[in-house]
This record gives sequence, C-alpha cells and structure tokens, in this order.
Amino acid sequence: SINGDRLWDSLMEMAKIGKTAKDGVCRLALTDLDRESRDLFIKWCKAEGCTIRIDKMGNIFARREGRNPELPPVVMGSHLDSQPTGGKYDGVYGVLSGLEVIRTLNEAKYETEAPLEVVCWTNEEGSRFAPAMVASGVFAKVFDLDYGHSRADVDGKTMGEELKRIGYLGDDEATIDAHPMGAYFEAHIEQGPILEDEGKDIGIVTDAQGQRWYEIKFTGVEAHAGPTPMKTRKDALLGASRVVDLVNRIGLDRSPLACATVGMMQIHPNSRNVIPGEVFFTVDFRHPDDAVLADMDKALREGVEKIASDIGLKTELEQIFYYAPVPFDKTCVDAVRNAVEIGGYSAREIVSGAGHDACYLAQVTPTAMIFIPCVDGISHNEIEEVHKHWSDAGGQVLLHAVLAKADE
Amino acid sequence: SINGDRLWDSLMEMAKIGKTAKDGVCRLALTDLDRESRDLFIKWCKAEGCTIRIDKMGNIFARREGRNPELPPVVMGSHLDSQPTGGKYDGVYGVLSGLEVIRTLNEAKYETEAPLEVVCWTNEEGSRFAPAMVASGVFAKVFDLDYGHSRADVDGKTMGEELKRIGYLGDDEATIDAHPMGAYFEAHIEQGPILEDEGKDIGIVTDAQGQRWYEIKFTGVEAHAGPTPMKTRKDALLGASRVVDLVNRIGLDRSPLACATVGMMQIHPNSRNVIPGEVFFTVDFRHPDDAVLADMDKALREGVEKIASDIGLKTELEQIFYYAPVPFDKTCVDAVRNAVEIGGYSAREIVSGAGHDACYLAQVTPTAMIFIPCVDGISHNEIEEVHKHWSDAGGQVLLHAVLAKADE
Ligand SMILES: NC(=O)NCCC(=O)O
Ligand SMILES: NC(=O)NCCC(=O)O
Repeated sequence: SINGDRLWDSLMEMAKIGKTAKDGVCRLALTDLDRESRDLFIKWCKAEGCTIRIDKMGNIFARREGRNPELPPVVMGSHLDSQPTGGKYDGVYGVLSGLEVIRTLNEAKYETEAPLEVVCWTNEEGSRFAPAMVASGVFAKVFDLDYGHSRADVDGKTMGEELKRIGYLGDDEATIDAHPMGAYFEAHIEQGPILEDEGKDIGIVTDAQGQRWYEIKFTGVEAHAGPTPMKTRKDALLGASRVVDLVNRIGLDRSPLACATVGMMQIHPNSRNVIPGEVFFTVDFRHPDDAVLADMDKALREGVEKIASDIGLKTELEQIFYYAPVPFDKTCVDAVRNAVEIGGYSAREIVSGAGHDACYLAQVTPTAMIFIPCVDGISHNEIEEVHKHWSDAGGQVLLHAVLAKADE
Repeated sequence: SINGDRLWDSLMEMAKIGKTAKDGVCRLALTDLDRESRDLFIKWCKAEGCTIRIDKMGNIFARREGRNPELPPVVMGSHLDSQPTGGKYDGVYGVLSGLEVIRTLNEAKYETEAPLEVVCWTNEEGSRFAPAMVASGVFAKVFDLDYGHSRADVDGKTMGEELKRIGYLGDDEATIDAHPMGAYFEAHIEQGPILEDEGKDIGIVTDAQGQRWYEIKFTGVEAHAGPTPMKTRKDALLGASRVVDLVNRIGLDRSPLACATVGMMQIHPNSRNVIPGEVFFTVDFRHPDDAVLADMDKALREGVEKIASDIGLKTELEQIFYYAPVPFDKTCVDAVRNAVEIGGYSAREIVSGAGHDACYLAQVTPTAMIFIPCVDGISHNEIEEVHKHWSDAGGQVLLHAVLAKADE
C-alpha cells in the first residue's frame, strides 16, 4: 500500500513554490519557479536512489533500476508547470504519485522486473508557450526539436533560450527512439464534474477528445473614438467579439460533447478612446469525434470570413495545434481496471476532456490514464481542490497498474 | 504674421521625444518622456523671456507680460502627452502654436494690453490615467485636487506620485480662482474627416459633444476549456463580447451623430485553454445632444444587465466620466471668425467630436477652439498627419484671435 499521508505532504510542499494569494499556484513553464519545482523533484528522487536524466526538451526522467535492466522501463508521470492562476494538483499529482510508488517500493524493498521511471514533461499547460504538451509532443515525434525550441512566449523568449537560462537544457535526445518505454501511466485530476457528480473515486480513462487550436489576428484601422463616424470604422475588437459569440454557438450547437472557447485576447492599442486597430486572439475546439471537429473547423472559417468582410477587417487565421481523438492501449486500460478491483474502489470509464502528455505518448507506447475527481470539476483556477481519500485511491491504483506491467 | 516654418520645425523637434517606429509618438502622461517634452517646452519659453509657473496638477503656465499686468491673461494651449500609438500634432499643435504667437510678437516687439500665457495641461489623453482632461478638470473645479492626484494607472501608480517622481508637482493652486483668465483659446487638429473632405483650412468650433465614459467588470467562473461543459460555463469574455456588439448597435442606431466605442479590455487569466473568469472593459459614448446621451446610457445599462443575467455573470458598472455638450463663448468664437476673415482662409463652423481641455475651461472662462484638418481624419494613430499650410493657417488665426482679445 502507498503512504497517502506522505503523498499528500509532498503535494502540499510542492504547492508552496509559486503559491498565490488565493492558495493556488502560478508556476509558468521555464520560469524561475518552474526551476525551483524541478530542483525539489530531483532532490526527492535522488533521496530515493534514483538516477536522473534530462533531455533536450528539459523532460526529466528519474529511474529506479529493475531486476532486468535490459527491459524498457514502465514510466509514470505528468508535469509540474501550471496555469497563471492554476491549482495544486493539475499535473503535480501525476508526478508525485509516481514518486510515491517508488518510495513505497523502496520501503517494501520490492524489486520489479522492469525498471521504473518517473517523468516530468516540460510546458504541458501551453499557457506560457503554445501549444500545450509541446515537449511530450517532441518526444513522441509529433514535432521536431527545432519546433520545440523555437516556441516563444508573448515577450518573444523561446523555450530553447529559457531551458538554457534555468539550467534544464539536457543532453539526452528528446525522442522515444533514444528512450524506449514498456508502458506509460499518467494519473491526473479529472478537471471536469463527472466523477464527483456520480460519487466515483476513480476514472478509468479509455479515450481523450481531439483538439484544434487556432490563432486569429484581425487588423482594422485604429482611430479616435470621438470624431470617427460609426459607419466608417474598421473596429478590430468588434470583429473579435463577434467571433467569441460565434465560437460559443459552434460549441453549444454540438453540446454536450463539444467544447469551444476563446481564452485569450490581446487588443491594440487598448486605450479607452481609441477604436482598436488590431486584435489577436485564440480559439480552442474539442470533441471526441474527429468528424465533428472537422465540421467545427469549417463553421469557424466560414464565420470568421463573413464577420471580417462585414466590418472590412484583414484576417490572419492559423490552426496551430491539432490532434485526433486518442484511444488508450487496451492492455494498459485493463491494468488500471484490475488495479481498481484490487483496491475495491468505485470507478467508471471516462473520456478525457483535457489534453495530456499521455495523449502524445499513446501514439508511440502503450499508454493509459487514471483520473481522480476534483471538487466541482474545477481546475485551471486557484480554487482547484481534491479530497485526500481521492488522492490516496489514485496512488494506490497507479501502484498496482504499474506493478502488473513491470512484472508481467 | 507668424513664422510657419519655425512652428513646423518646433513640431518636428518635439516629435523626436517618444518617436515610434512608424513615425508616431508614444509619450504617455507623466512618464520620463513626458518630462523631457515639458523640459523642452520650458526651455523654449524661457528663451522667449517668459516666466514659468507650475501648479499642483503639473499644469505649466508660461507668461509674457502685458502693458497692464493687472489684467487677467489671455491664455493659449493644449497638451503634450500622447496616446500609446499617437501622432505628432494632437495636443502639441495647440501648445506650440501658442509659443509661436509669443515668438512672433517678441520678434515684432509688439506689446499686448493684457498679458499672454501658454499653458500645457497634464494628462489630457486619459490613456494612462482615466479620465481624460483630468488636470484641466481640476483647474475648472469639476474635480477636486485629491481626485486628480489619486487617479491611478493599470500598475496602480497615481498621478500624485508620478508628478512628484518626474519633478512636476508644482506649488501653485490648480484652480481658476488662483489663476483667473481673460479668455482661453485652443488650437487643435480636427481628428475627424469633415474639414479635409470639404476642402476647408480652418474649423470655427462652436460646440463640443457631450461624453460619458464607463468602466464595466464582469465576473464569471474561470475553468478548464476542455472538460467544462458549454452549458455550465460562466464565461466573462462571452459577456464582454456581447457588450461590444451592443455598444456598436447603440452607436449605429443613433448614427451619424452618435459615437460608441469599447477601446480597452483586460481579460483574466488570458490563457488559451482557460474560460475567462473576469473581464474589465471600458465604454465611451458621445453625442452633441445631452438627451440622446442619456438615452444611450439607459440602453447600455439595460443591455448589460440582460447579457450578464443570460450568462450568470456578476456585474460592476460605473460611469466614471461625464460632461454635457459644451457651447463655446460667443465673443471668443467671433474673435476666431474675424481672424479667419483677416487671413482670408476657407472655413466652416464645426462641432468637436473629441474632448479637449477647452471643454472644461469653457465652464469657467470665455473659451473657443480653432481646428485645422488632419489627413483622412485620422488621429490616435501613429500615421496622424497634417499638411504644413494647415499648420500655418491655424497659427495665423490663433495670433489674430488672441490679439483681438488681449487688446480689446
Ligand atoms: N490537463 C491540462 O490541463 N492540459 C492542458 C492542455 C489542455 O488544454 O487540454
Ligand atoms: N483630443 C483628444 O484626443 N482628447 C482626448 C479625450 C477624448 O477622448 O475626447
């Protein structure tokens, strides 16, 4: 059995790094705070006798040797970066429950057949650097290394530069070929309301929704809000606002399965008495069915064109991120299902609404995910909360799923 | 006659302070660049033998003595601060054409009966610190000094602190009572398309539109863009976007005289995969008829309430700035009209769409404005442009209008 108190204490300890006033976490990828959290994780892993490897995307692998070092490792993990106003569990839970599995096995002096590893992936959130999960994407050969290193934040700083600056630009090749795996398990909070609503402790994740992310820039004419007649205006914010409404309708029309969001908008010059001349904003579409996702894409492109031509705006629209719905590996999902039975937990099958590093790993190695509920389904919010008995349950299920795979 | 080349050279010299890549000006109120422009203005005034006084709002008065120092001065001026992406003429033209009048009279060794002054008002634009024209508003007793000093920028820095920091917190009382005027004339670019369209060199400004400015904050629930069902969302940006569309309709429905603009919006947390939990934005309404302005206010309040309740948002709405349409002083407007005739310029009467320091001054002293055209009616934009012969004409009209008042 894992030590639920120890796991919980580690979660609380890690949450001090980047703690916000409302008891959440702000630990954006590759900031000094991200470095602090990485340093602490490595310190803990070394205390358990693990060896550490860091790859060229800053992904950290902590290894506990197995009886047969030739076997590819069974890997557990997730990410330590957060949203600007994020919570204490999103990502961190998957990394530290992996560490707890290793601590438990060390304490029990239990040797697995295959080696075990805990991984911490770089920039999963996609908030400072878009897109999300870029480092696991490079690892899974969806993106190449140059693409990964050249992702830039709003100030133009790139991931390559920032990895170097915080001392986490490692030597290992960041690809599955240089680092084969036997299986990958990611424990994570659900980030939605289903498990809690139905009183389940565990979600057995069978699939993940597909996603499409866009960047749109409207250019109009910036002019004085006082003497510029309404009819001659080319107001870029009016255009962007109509797209926000359109995106919402695209989502609602395909409810309850579709999600459609404009989360970010930058307005230029953003002055009270100036008609905005330029607006940059993003769109996030999700659906478990790839065909519906394609249909949402079509509705967006047509709608944006119509809105821009009504107002007389210049449009740049780019899909910057796409992945098809992801089915997880049947044998790994079965390992999770068996682990749930061993623990006697209440559980249900579930589709992930969020993207996870596991979604990319699933393309190159047998993969599954374990969800635990979060209070009111809320995440990406400082008030994100988890009950300790959910955390205990997830760690326990992870332990048994991993043992089944490592000793098979 | 004024020296049009000298006026033009001074405009170009001043435009170097805060020059942007696109040949505009970024010289936000009370920044170091604002200080530089003030220093240069004072240097030029001292070279003409003027005495300088600075009041507690940082307004600068440069005085050329008259034959009768007991008479209240005839004052000319405007502002040196700019929008974030502003032009070379907005405000600056009124200050430097005033200086050119003094240079011309010095050269001609012409002594006026009443003293003359050139004034530079603090923070006219209202971009760094809202509302606009706050320092002339304090001077005209529309606001008290505490209100003026406590206006804060987005970083929370106040006008009082920033005046002190740049060394422009003067000793003089910032009120008309401590500083009576015989008349106030402000030369300015039109900032709209009418004069150029009709081929006129000068606008004889008879009135200014009324204005109402608002601040609105919507609070919803910030949550993950992936697993949060459309139907349970409380998306603050969706609400704000619908208000942008509403504001546009309120303006269009009362076109061509009404203007209605959302120029600024701040989205929280502004992350691509987070449903925005909080949006702060501004509304700017203008109309020459106070009753219509009241009707626009009503439409806004009703519309905002409906939009917020549809989505389930909490609303804070505050009107932070209001003034009724302003009629200018008949005798001052006549002085402008006569000056136009003396110069033989083509001119028309016009209503100001923008707010100006003159709008507040008009409440406490006889006031008029002189407009010159600007290319394509564009201002609050780096490409703001003026033809030199317009600049010459405005300076000449200012000279004769001021002489008429100072020697009457
Ligand atoms: N789990 C999570 O929040 N991932 C970020 C990528 C996404 O928006 O789905
Ligand atoms: N003239 C000018 O741009 N004034 C700023 C205040 C306003 O927006 O009318």
